[in-house]
Amino acid sequence: MNIAANNPELKSWVNVPEDSHFPIQNLPFGIFKTKYLNPGACVAIGNKVLDLTYLNNNGFLDDLGLPQGLFNQASLNDFFRLGKKRVREVRNKVSNLLRHDNPELRNNSIAVEMALIDMKEVEMLLPVYVQNYTDFYSSIEHATNVGIMFRDPANALLPNWKHLPVGYHGRASSIVVSGTPVIRPKGQTKAPDQEMPVFGPTKRLDFELEMAFITCGDTVQGESVTVADAEDMIVGMVLFNDWSARDVQVWEYVPLGPFLAKNFSSSVSPWVVTLDALEPFRVQGPVQDPPVLPYLQFKGKRNFDIQLSAAIQPEKGPNTVISNTNFKHMYWNMAQQLAHHSVNGCNIETGDMYASGTISGPTPDSYGSMLELAWKGTKPIKLADGSERIFINDHDEVIISGYAQHAKYKIGFGEVRSKILPATK
Amino acid sequence: MNIAANNPELKSWVNVPEDSHFPIQNLPFGIFKTKYLNPGACVAIGNKVLDLTYLNNNGFLDDLGLPQGLFNQASLNDFFRLGKKRVREVRNKVSNLLRHDNPELRNNSIAVEMALIDMKEVEMLLPVYVQNYTDFYSSIEHATNVGIMFRDPANALLPNWKHLPVGYHGRASSIVVSGTPVIRPKGQTKAPDQEMPVFGPTKRLDFELEMAFITCGDTVQGESVTVADAEDMIVGMVLFNDWSARDVQVWEYVPLGPFLAKNFSSSVSPWVVTLDALEPFRVQGPVQDPPVLPYLQFKGKRNFDIQLSAAIQPEKGPNTVISNTNFKHMYWNMAQQLAHHSVNGCNIETGDMYASGTISGPTPDSYGSMLELAWKGTKPIKLADGSERIFINDHDEVIISGYAQHAKYKIGFGEVRSKILPATK
Repeated sequence: MNIAANNPELKSWVNVPEDSHFPIQNLPFGIFKTKYLNPGACVAIGNKVLDLTYLNNNGFLDDLGLPQGLFNQASLNDFFRLGKKRVREVRNKVSNLLRHDNPELRNNSIAVEMALIDMKEVEMLLPVYVQNYTDFYSSIEHATNVGIMFRDPANALLPNWKHLPVGYHGRASSIVVSGTPVIRPKGQTKAPDQEMPVFGPTKRLDFELEMAFITCGDTVQGESVTVADAEDMIVGMVLFNDWSARDVQVWEYVPLGPFLAKNFSSSVSPWVVTLDALEPFRVQGPVQDPPVLPYLQFKGKRNFDIQLSAAIQPEKGPNTVISNTNFKHMYWNMAQQLAHHSVNGCNIETGDMYASGTISGPTPDSYGSMLELAWKGTKPIKLADGSERIFINDHDEVIISGYAQHAKYKIGFGEVRSKILPATK
Repeated sequence: MNIAANNPELKSWVNVPEDSHFPIQNLPFGIFKTKYLNPGACVAIGNKVLDLTYLNNNGFLDDLGLPQGLFNQASLNDFFRLGKKRVREVRNKVSNLLRHDNPELRNNSIAVEMALIDMKEVEMLLPVYVQNYTDFYSSIEHATNVGIMFRDPANALLPNWKHLPVGYHGRASSIVVSGTPVIRPKGQTKAPDQEMPVFGPTKRLDFELEMAFITCGDTVQGESVTVADAEDMIVGMVLFNDWSARDVQVWEYVPLGPFLAKNFSSSVSPWVVTLDALEPFRVQGPVQDPPVLPYLQFKGKRNFDIQLSAAIQPEKGPNTVISNTNFKHMYWNMAQQLAHHSVNGCNIETGDMYASGTISGPTPDSYGSMLELAWKGTKPIKLADGSERIFINDHDEVIISGYAQHAKYKIGFGEVRSKILPATK
């Protein structure tokens, strides 16, 4: 596996601010548009986006033999369908074009003027057309917290939890990109002391701090992907906010799982950070005890050390970070999730999105939802402006951010930021 | 609403056998291909399919002003996206071309030769690209049976069941058309008396006799569809077999619902029977008591009298009908399902598929799954060849069929037929 783009010594001729999420070692893919350009694929570098359509149309990627029109599309699906190896080749090539000692693009002032666009001038769109969306439940801390709050503290984890990565299907149509406002959903709720349910805006709107991986390539129905091969089908990751209406959820979810409590909206960050770029950040996950069945056993480091935070920004107040957690805590890793998902022959498609479930760490300040942070409303969270929250208010903006920290640079995801608008009349 | 095609007096110049599912009053839409023709849209009439691409390319539909290329596609999505009114116009126009007293197509022997193809010569494909798939749980008899078997017979229905149409998201990628074999899925199971789970082919493979509706048109996220308007977005229906691995399901489904027990495959019939064609078969549904919340209240007849059956055909034996039920039994109707699904702002897309949940009737011979028919394995079902079933065996073919019966004709769905292949090694 030749990931030339990961060389930590590389510098780019494009200025990359010290703390940038997008050094030359990252080069995540996204879909952008501008006032003048239709949606198309790009790569992030520093505070700029690099237009892949321009590069492909003007000979800079010719040695890769890519299809014409691959990048001037409103999603990365056709690109990702070429498979992980081809995506790696493009990332390596872009890295080569951006390195400080390569004059090919740098000294072509027209090309630089055309292809390198200030992030302030672009609108980032949903990076993939989401074919299928699944949400897992793979943080042992989160599952334990929920079990303590809603079931039996002595037996917080259900019997199946340590034997399989519990997951469920979600709604693909309502996944939106960072910056898209989220309208407070209405729904049916029933308090335990009420005899009849009522209808109205949720009173317990929550975020869930998650990450999601995106697949490249399609399997044949009836076949399955092994744990050993699963990462060949995972092109990269995004930040994911699995919005949840807790009062709707608790009333509707038995016996078939969450439905309207979740499907009004999920928000994702616009940049697909490749698993390749995350290679240097592999770590061991938690020990899985009891041992898992053979089809879920894995070798090597399958977790990733990615620092994550959630913040609330009230309409007129400053931003308050309310959680700091890490993707490395996940009990079930992505390779296990994908192997499990396909072990029954369920076919995987390019552009599927598989979310992790809420990522809670071991300490109360590392929990990934208001439900846990404010412990079912009993421990209000104080914001910098002096106000308190047990759930999310109208006009609050919730910002989830994340990056992997190398000695010399950050591999960042940017953020997923969503403002809550009041329920419709 | 002008549904000229529903005129019960109409006869076609195309021969329609007495018991046909596809008289001129039906005219369902599908996607077919032949040895010589790429996938494209068609209408069923008697034992023939009528090629809509040919009609559109050769002037027969000119007064409708349809886009070129609308029908020579591998799905009906673009057609259905035009909306219910346009679909109705096409059905009315096709009806006009097929009526016995219209010579326009009938007397054009070249056109008849080209456009009218024997069903034996065509392969029917999945009619829509399924954007999103949701499965409801709307038969009170089925929910009650499951509650009695697995929970508390005295409180078989969960508290939310009569207040909202319980549903969950399923997997769109693995929905296949009638005739596609279904490979017995493997999965993780744990018997109550086992300490640890095991992995292997399901031992409790079940069918679920369902119907599904398909949407035409897209809503804006944040907006909702009222019960009164919901049927404007429902273009038609298909038969639906929601394959289920019961042993996998019981182990995995808490707390987030069915997952691998269902997502290996769901099978649908190829013909989208329009809601227009089903107009004459409207009936009152069961009384909903307690009364539902205002957003779920409806006027008029919203259920449909559709006779349904399930049969098992062993590899070398005759076919045995094991269940006769009816869609009219559903407690929650389609308009309520769609209104509920979108009441939180979840956006609806053209080509979404919404399944009913298992359709069980009030009597034991009208249950819609082996789980209920053989009552959790305690009452084996005897087949015509003398063998018994409590679940579905390898090489069994399961056939779900359905039609609405008019005094003069049947509005049929054809069938969804699937053969079970042994699990892969």
